[in-house]
Amino acid sequence: MNIGGQRFRTIWLNPANEQIVQLIDQRFLPHQFVIEDVTTVAQMANAIREMHVRGAGLIGASAGYGMYLAAIEAGASATIAEFDRQLADAAAQLKATRPTAVNLSWAVERQTANIANGKTAPEKIALALRTAKEIAAEDEEHCRLIGQHGLHLIEQIARSKNGKPINVLTHCNAGWLAFVDYGSALAPIYTAHDRGLPVHVWVDETRPRSQGSKLTAWELAQHGVPHTIIADSVGGHLMQRGDVDLVIVGSDRTTRAGDVANKIGTYLKALAAKDNNVPFYVALPSASFDWSIRDGNEIPIEQRSVDEVKRAHGWRDGQMLEVSLAPENSPAANYGFDVTPRRLVTGLITERGICKADEKSILKLFPEHAS
Amino acid sequence: MNIGGQRFRTIWLNPANEQIVQLIDQRFLPHQFVIEDVTTVAQMANAIREMHVRGAGLIGASAGYGMYLAAIEAGASATIAEFDRQLADAAAQLKATRPTAVNLSWAVERQTANIANGKTAPEKIALALRTAKEIAAEDEEHCRLIGQHGLHLIEQIARSKNGKPINVLTHCNAGWLAFVDYGSALAPIYTAHDRGLPVHVWVDETRPRSQGSKLTAWELAQHGVPHTIIADSVGGHLMQRGDVDLVIVGSDRTTRAGDVANKIGTYLKALAAKDNNVPFYVALPSASFDWSIRDGNEIPIEQRSVDEVKRAHGWRDGQMLEVSLAPENSPAANYGFDVTPRRLVTGLITERGICKADEKSILKLFPEHAS
Repeated sequence: MNIGGQRFRTIWLNPANEQIVQLIDQRFLPHQFVIEDVTTVAQMANAIREMHVRGAGLIGASAGYGMYLAAIEAGASATIAEFDRQLADAAAQLKATRPTAVNLSWAVERQTANIANGKTAPEKIALALRTAKEIAAEDEEHCRLIGQHGLHLIEQIARSKNGKPINVLTHCNAGWLAFVDYGSALAPIYTAHDRGLPVHVWVDETRPRSQGSKLTAWELAQHGVPHTIIADSVGGHLMQRGDVDLVIVGSDRTTRAGDVANKIGTYLKALAAKDNNVPFYVALPSASFDWSIRDGNEIPIEQRSVDEVKRAHGWRDGQMLEVSLAPENSPAANYGFDVTPRRLVTGLITERGICKADEKSILKLFPEHAS
Repeated sequence: MNIGGQRFRTIWLNPANEQIVQLIDQRFLPHQFVIEDVTTVAQMANAIREMHVRGAGLIGASAGYGMYLAAIEAGASATIAEFDRQLADAAAQLKATRPTAVNLSWAVERQTANIANGKTAPEKIALALRTAKEIAAEDEEHCRLIGQHGLHLIEQIARSKNGKPINVLTHCNAGWLAFVDYGSALAPIYTAHDRGLPVHVWVDETRPRSQGSKLTAWELAQHGVPHTIIADSVGGHLMQRGDVDLVIVGSDRTTRAGDVANKIGTYLKALAAKDNNVPFYVALPSASFDWSIRDGNEIPIEQRSVDEVKRAHGWRDGQMLEVSLAPENSPAANYGFDVTPRRLVTGLITERGICKADEKSILKLFPEHAS
C-alpha cells in the first residue's frame, strides 16, 4: 500500500543484495518511519519477539525470511548434518518467539520441509530463498483476494445506507502492516474505498500496545480512508446507538471448527455485535487456520510483560518515551489474545470466499484439509 | 479509608477555617498525594470539570460544598434577591460541569431547596453549610451500608471456594476515592477483606483516563487488598477461563427501572458476565438513582476531549507528562459512559439492601419514589 504516495510492502529483500531482508520497524509508527536491515536469524527472531514486525501474516512472512537467513548462516557448516542441526535450532528459535500466531509455525514448517529437499548447502539455500518469496507472495495475493470477497459484504450494506457512510469497526491492526500487503480485516475496506464507497472505520486503540491508534489509524490515514480512534471500551456503546454497520477483525489462529483467537478484547466486541444484531466477520488467509484443532480452548494464549499494561509508550519531543500509569508495586497481567467462540462469528472471509464459522462450511472451501 | 495508615476522606472542611473546603486532587495519584484548598464556587466547578474530584458520590458531595461556597460568596450581596440570583447562577455553573452523573444535580437541587428556607444571608449560609455536611455524611453512611449488604454476596461465594481467593472484577474507580469514604463497588470488597475473606480484585485500567490503574489500584494497595491490573479488553477472557467469581461496578446514574449508566465499557463486561454465568452487580447509593426516567437511553452521555484518547498521561522523572499515541491528524471520539440494560444486571446493592434491577424491586426498597 502507499506511504506518502510511494508503494511499500512491510518486508522485502534488498534488491541490490538479496542476503539482506528489509522491513518496516513498526515500533516507531506513526511518529517515525524506520526501515531495518536484518541479516541473521537471531536478528529476525528478535524483530518478531520485540514486535518490530507483528500481525499474523507478517509474522509468517518474517519467519519464512528468517529461515532463509538461517540457511545462509548454516551454509558455512562443514557438513550437511551440521547444516541441518543449525537449521533445526533456528526453526525452534523462531517458533518460540510468539506462541499464539499459527502462521509462525506454519511458515517455519513449510521452510523446513522444502529445504530438506536440497542435497547440498547451495541447493538448500536456493530452496529457502524460493520458499520465503513464495510465502510472502501468497500472503499478498491471499489478502488481495480477501479484499475482493469482503467488498461484496460492504457493497451489500451500502445499498441500504443510501449514500451515508458505512461504519466498520475493527480491533487491533489487521491491515497491511500486519501482512505483506493489503491486510486481512482492512483489505475489504481499502477495496471498497478505492471503488468509491463511503467507508468510515472505528479504530479500537487496542491497549496495551496501541496497535489501533498507532498502526491502523496511520495506515488508514496514509491511504485516505476516513476513520475515528476510540478507546477499546467504546465499541459496545456505538453498536447500541446503531453507529456500527459491520465489524471486521483479523485472526492470529482459527480452529478448523471456526473458533477465533485474535487480539485480546475481540471476544467482547463479538458479544456486543451479537447483542445488537451487527454482523461480525473475521478475515483471514488460510495460513491462519490451525487445521490440527477444533476447540479454541486448545490455543495457547501469549502473556506478555506487565510493563506494557502499567505503562504507556508514546511520542514526546521527538522521541518515544514511557510514562507510568499505575502504582509501582501493583501487580498486573497481560494476556495478549482471547478466543471468540464460533457461535458469535457471522462469517469468515478467506482468499477462497466467505463461509460460515463451522467445520463443514470451512472444509467446503478447503476440502484438502478434510481428515 | 487509610492512606499510609492515616485516616482520610476525599473531601472535608478545614477544621481551622470552615470557609475552606479541602479535597484530594486526584489528578496526581498514584504518584503524588496533593491536597487542594477550594474557596470559591468557580474553583469547585473547575475541580469537578477538570476531574480533580470525580466519581458519582464525590461529585455530589463536591457540588454540595460548592453551593456552600457559593452561599458565602453571595453573602456579600446587597439584597436577598441579588443573593438568590447569584446562587442560581452558581447552581447552573455547577450542574453544567459533568452531564452524566446524577448526584451532581441531585446535590445542587437539595442545596437550592434547603437554602431557600433561610430568610437572611447568614441564615442561608448556615443552611448551606448544614446541607453540605449532611450530603457528605449521608454519602459516607450509605457507602458503609453498601459494604455491609455486599459482604453477604461475597460470603456466599466464599463458601463455595474452599478458602481459595474470591476473584472480583471491577471497572473504573467506584472506590472510596469516588465517594466521601468506603466507595460503592469497592465497599463490599473492603468489608470482606477486613473480615479476613481472601478477596482478590481484577482492576480494569479504564482508558482513557486510567482511573483503574491510577486510583483503584492505589486505594486497594493502600488498604492492603490483593489486586491485579488488566487492560480493559481482558475481562471477557478471564471470565471464559473461570477466573472471575463476581463483577461489581458503580453507577453514575441508574434509572428507576434499573438501567445503569456507568463508565464506558461497563456494558461489555456485563455482556461477558452474562455469557459466562458470572453474577454482575451494581453498587450505588440511592443518590445515584434518577427517579425521573425509566429508559437508560434518556441518560445524556458525556463526550470529553479527544486528546484523552490520542494521548496517555503518566508519570516520568518526577512529573506528569503526556505522550502521543496516535497520528496527529487522526480524528478520535471520547464517550465517557455507556448504559448497561437492566436485563444484564444480576442485582443492585444499595444502602437499604440488595434488589433485582427492575422497577418493582427497586421501589420495594424505596417506596417513597413510587409515583
